[in-house]
Amino acid sequence: MRENTFVLEDTISALLENKKYATLRDILITMNPADVAILFEELPEEKLPLLFRLLPKEQAAETFVEMESDVQEMLIRGFSDAELKEVVDELYVDDAADLVEEMPANVVKRILRQADPEMRKMINEVLKYPEDSAGSIMTTEFVSLRPGMTAEEAIKRIRRTGVDKETIYTCYVTSTSNVLVGFISLKHLILAEDDDLVEDIMDTNLISVKTTDDQEDVAQMFTRYNFVALPVVDGDNRLVGIITVDDAMDVIEEETTEDIEIMAGITPSDKPYLKMSVFSIWKSRIPWLLLLMVSATFTGMIITSFENALAAQVALTAFIPMLMDTGGNSGSQASVTIIRSLSLGDIEFSDIFRVIWKEIRVSFFCGIVLAAANFIKIVLVDMLLMHSSGVTYTVALVVCLTLGVTVICAKVVGCTLPMLAQKLGFDPAVMASPFITTIVDALSLLIYFRWASLLLNL
Amino acid sequence: MRENTFVLEDTISALLENKKYATLRDILITMNPADVAILFEELPEEKLPLLFRLLPKEQAAETFVEMESDVQEMLIRGFSDAELKEVVDELYVDDAADLVEEMPANVVKRILRQADPEMRKMINEVLKYPEDSAGSIMTTEFVSLRPGMTAEEAIKRIRRTGVDKETIYTCYVTSTSNVLVGFISLKHLILAEDDDLVEDIMDTNLISVKTTDDQEDVAQMFTRYNFVALPVVDGDNRLVGIITVDDAMDVIEEETTEDIEIMAGITPSDKPYLKMSVFSIWKSRIPWLLLLMVSATFTGMIITSFENALAAQVALTAFIPMLMDTGGNSGSQASVTIIRSLSLGDIEFSDIFRVIWKEIRVSFFCGIVLAAANFIKIVLVDMLLMHSSGVTYTVALVVCLTLGVTVICAKVVGCTLPMLAQKLGFDPAVMASPFITTIVDALSLLIYFRWASLLLNL
Repeated sequence: MRENTFVLEDTISALLENKKYATLRDILITMNPADVAILFEELPEEKLPLLFRLLPKEQAAETFVEMESDVQEMLIRGFSDAELKEVVDELYVDDAADLVEEMPANVVKRILRQADPEMRKMINEVLKYPEDSAGSIMTTEFVSLRPGMTAEEAIKRIRRTGVDKETIYTCYVTSTSNVLVGFISLKHLILAEDDDLVEDIMDTNLISVKTTDDQEDVAQMFTRYNFVALPVVDGDNRLVGIITVDDAMDVIEEETTEDIEIMAGITPSDKPYLKMSVFSIWKSRIPWLLLLMVSATFTGMIITSFENALAAQVALTAFIPMLMDTGGNSGSQASVTIIRSLSLGDIEFSDIFRVIWKEIRVSFFCGIVLAAANFIKIVLVDMLLMHSSGVTYTVALVVCLTLGVTVICAKVVGCTLPMLAQKLGFDPAVMASPFITTIVDALSLLIYFRWASLLLNL
Repeated sequence: MRENTFVLEDTISALLENKKYATLRDILITMNPADVAILFEELPEEKLPLLFRLLPKEQAAETFVEMESDVQEMLIRGFSDAELKEVVDELYVDDAADLVEEMPANVVKRILRQADPEMRKMINEVLKYPEDSAGSIMTTEFVSLRPGMTAEEAIKRIRRTGVDKETIYTCYVTSTSNVLVGFISLKHLILAEDDDLVEDIMDTNLISVKTTDDQEDVAQMFTRYNFVALPVVDGDNRLVGIITVDDAMDVIEEETTEDIEIMAGITPSDKPYLKMSVFSIWKSRIPWLLLLMVSATFTGMIITSFENALAAQVALTAFIPMLMDTGGNSGSQASVTIIRSLSLGDIEFSDIFRVIWKEIRVSFFCGIVLAAANFIKIVLVDMLLMHSSGVTYTVALVVCLTLGVTVICAKVVGCTLPMLAQKLGFDPAVMASPFITTIVDALSLLIYFRWASLLLNL
């Protein structure tokens, strides 16, 4: 999809060069704000204020929301107060709050000065909730109805107040003390008789979230229930905001990327790869590499302590990488499956024994097949074909027994650690491949040298 | 969230035991269909047909859609023709098509016999598109308007025909030959003046997808544009269906799980972990383990070919696991970052040189820090503290030089392979940790033995 943007980029550059502003405007107004934002980021920075001023008011604000924060800051610094006010007036509260959170203090001051008092109050309302909470991603612009209204009155109210609301498709019904008592979709209102009472046609099976709920759990509820919006209530069940499905999708994308990064041993960042500086990429990766390098030296110590055994049977060394890799892969298969299932809510801590029992059976059959395949390979390739020195049937047996036991241990460790981590309040994603690999490496070597000393009398 | 379901489960079981059907019904109708489906799957299978019959028609159909296909099949086999018809009549076309795709032939025959002719035609329409295409996940139940209607007429039409439509919040405007000419949100219609013409207030900056587009690309468009629905057109730009945001969210969840599984060396499955048999989990994991085990034996061969060097300098062996693990971790950090960026559309093949140049710089600084930390560790711990035999300054130098060069190679390989894979039409996710680890293992050993023979005269 991005390819189209790049072809267009040349046309836009040429038009800019020739100062064909009317033509530029004609092109830009046919485009979706998300595409305009991507296009702008490919163009030279100094042209942006000029291009931005070509956009009609509403499109300008929508494009602004889609831009990276460094571009937003640059634009704001170039805005006159009147221009800034125009953009801020068009923003939804949740977007305005995001903006305020990401700008430096002096820019924030200018933004809040331009926002009208009502908007300022709503922005501050959203800002008081902790990061990653439902409160921090909600908007306070929603349609609320009263139980005693008729469908006709309700639709009239929506027509009167709906223009600034983030969604009018789900309306919330509140009592006089602002307590949430029901909801009704615009679809039901439109399809109802004019004089039906809201309280008779509204849905009272309310599913709502608390301001303090984790944004990831909230986003999962959208996937589960197929909602367009979810109401956010305070401790007394009073309606304070709503979260819409588009924000939930952003949360899901962000949290999934975070999970995947943590699973690969990377400190998550919310910037796209190409926007990150070399230093910040380095900073997100080096702590994990150092930590895992230090843990891996324990594996080295195990080898050192069996140095004499290895010197006596040099052939054993050649199988170490295969044993470590296969163990690591078996373990990460289990851990990644469990981490994903936990984050989708498919399994929870109380399933731990079912999971372990399942993994034991799976790993038993995996271990048998891998050990058998490996035995055949050692006999055919190493012994009959290559005549590798020191590779005997007993060595083959040691390798295959190690393989079988390692695979079982790796899968049990791989499935158990993420579940324990979650139970203890840590992110299970930390217990993915790099971590499991380091543990399983040490395990596999210990098992290897145990079988070797048992069967080869080392 | 699931915990609530389990507490309720005991109550429901007790009520079932005591045949309190009226009470059961009272409880069930307060619940969201998604929750009812989860609850039912925890209860004994033989009770399901009875419980299912307690649900009101619409809730029954919605619950049915949320169930796993094995439970659906069991229920259908127990339904009378009249009951089956009731459920099928309430289904949306896309859900009905999914159902038909997953049921065995004789059940499909019964379903299609109960569907009315209109529905049967629409199901067949959706079924003719390839799996994972936009056509296969669309629904043909949408609201279409004509350009010449007034806002009032449009709303009347929606009230008349909207009840069976999957969404009425985005309406599509088509010419007489069914060509898509614009769209209008219900919000705009409601807020417009009664006599505004649809063609004057509709949005003509159309973003649509083709029936043959990949479902993953389509789902990404929802994240990008914040749409509630997207129109699906055929080759002649005629409107044939729509895709709604809830289906897009399901696709994103499914495709992300698939990516994560492939990245961990698992053949993807669409069943949740606890529903999969031991045999099918085994089957999804063993091919990758076997493949990677065979590739890892090449690493063994490299060691074998340097057996004499290792026998002369046994101390070198102890550092092999650390070098392999650190290389593997560095490589997977790069590959996983690139795979995720590719799937989010943040980078594409034309960025390959920027990406490689970035990774070279990042890995250079990572390599320096890791090598320095390791040098200090070897001198302090191995030499001064443990007096490990054979560990000299030259050995430390060999290990650290290897580490530096390995990290750079690992990151370059890690970022290049996923991009090449995508260019060649493969899934970049295949090029994640397990695959990269195997390649980097061999690389790191080759580098290790090269430095060793240079500096230690082996």
